[in-house]
Amino acid sequence: MPRFFINPENIGETSVTIPAPDAVHIGRSLRMRIGDAITVCCGGIEYDCKIITISDNCVNCEIITSQKSLNEPDVEVTLFQAVPKGDKLDTIVQKAVELGVTRVCPVLTSRCVSRPDKNSFGKKLERLNRIALEAAKQSGRGIVPQVTELIGFDDCVKQLTANDYALVCYEGGGINLSETGLKSNSTIGLFIGSEGGFDKAEVDTCISAGSVAIGLGRRILRCETAPLAALSIIMNLTGNI
Amino acid sequence: MPRFFINPENIGETSVTIPAPDAVHIGRSLRMRIGDAITVCCGGIEYDCKIITISDNCVNCEIITSQKSLNEPDVEVTLFQAVPKGDKLDTIVQKAVELGVTRVCPVLTSRCVSRPDKNSFGKKLERLNRIALEAAKQSGRGIVPQVTELIGFDDCVKQLTANDYALVCYEGGGINLSETGLKSNSTIGLFIGSEGGFDKAEVDTCISAGSVAIGLGRRILRCETAPLAALSIIMNLTGNI
Repeated sequence: MPRFFINPENIGETSVTIPAPDAVHIGRSLRMRIGDAITVCCGGIEYDCKIITISDNCVNCEIITSQKSLNEPDVEVTLFQAVPKGDKLDTIVQKAVELGVTRVCPVLTSRCVSRPDKNSFGKKLERLNRIALEAAKQSGRGIVPQVTELIGFDDCVKQLTANDYALVCYEGGGINLSETGLKSNSTIGLFIGSEGGFDKAEVDTCISAGSVAIGLGRRILRCETAPLAALSIIMNLTGNI
Repeated sequence: MPRFFINPENIGETSVTIPAPDAVHIGRSLRMRIGDAITVCCGGIEYDCKIITISDNCVNCEIITSQKSLNEPDVEVTLFQAVPKGDKLDTIVQKAVELGVTRVCPVLTSRCVSRPDKNSFGKKLERLNRIALEAAKQSGRGIVPQVTELIGFDDCVKQLTANDYALVCYEGGGINLSETGLKSNSTIGLFIGSEGGFDKAEVDTCISAGSVAIGLGRRILRCETAPLAALSIIMNLTGNI
């Protein structure tokens, strides 16, 4: 069933409204009709609805039932991803959303080859958030994970260690994800390096601030493979895959 | 350290030879010199060598030490992948090799949109095996995982169920990978569908032949994300990541 994400102000007690451009998409591309069933999501709640009126500006729907999205994992994972070269961040965002990430936070670390400034990153950020929205629709998420603004290393360490678990993937060695004791209903920060990985000093800073260094096995994973492998394993260890 | 894969006939008792085109690459692109250290792999054995002579035809090396590759997982996973559209199989092969797959076997299932015949798949197969070789070098594998010829569904079921564990990923439901009791030192067959997933009849056939249907959580994974998530989790559960 088609799935649309709306803002809280579009939810009434017994009805919801879906504004443009989704309204156009519903009426013209999907050719949906009055009476058709549609799923509307907001903040992790899924509303099973019936379409009442359709125009290009607005689709009105009656709420039939609503429930907490069963598709959302019970852990909140923030992926702190050092900015890789080219369009690899596109792939990482898309796959991370499918795998259940809550938030992707791009970070500049010392080994980032691609070093956009905040302004030039703005356009990229719009595209990344569109990719997150599309991936959320396609994979049946209950929320749209946000791709946040580019931050520096020091900010990242602060935000990373504010989680119940703060994990930094280090190719120089670390414990296995199975040994981290990850539990359901927790917040997890996962920090992944760019092509060159991390400087040892950066990892030491993360550890001093309370993070745990983890290893992802003996084979060298590309910087776009590592977050997907780590997320898959985290979701499995916490019973979410 | 640069890593090259050679055939058994190039290994002597105390020396190995690396033929063209790798010899050209070593001498010209990498500009390696006599006396430099180099790692040569063959069939899961790593030879730490010293370069003795360099020409465009052949690089001769003295074997310093040799050992079983520590980077190889202790499970042998064959990924039976229903052929997806476009170049997604390229991505799947590259990432699967990084994650430790032993063999990738492309399969035609009823829902494959892309339906190449064996001849037209031949050229693609060459490229896929080149991708596997490059990924094996880059990720530090001890073997070059093979991408095998395109097979039909019936052949696939036979080969799949010849493994200690035969797993078919089914979006219609199945047990969690953690419940499959996967053990180290085993052979594992993993069957993943194309964009449309599997027909129920196909899954039933797999199960009748002795496979287990597994689920990959409640979020819908793209057909190129599913094998990477499953492989990551399998490698974690068997202690290889």
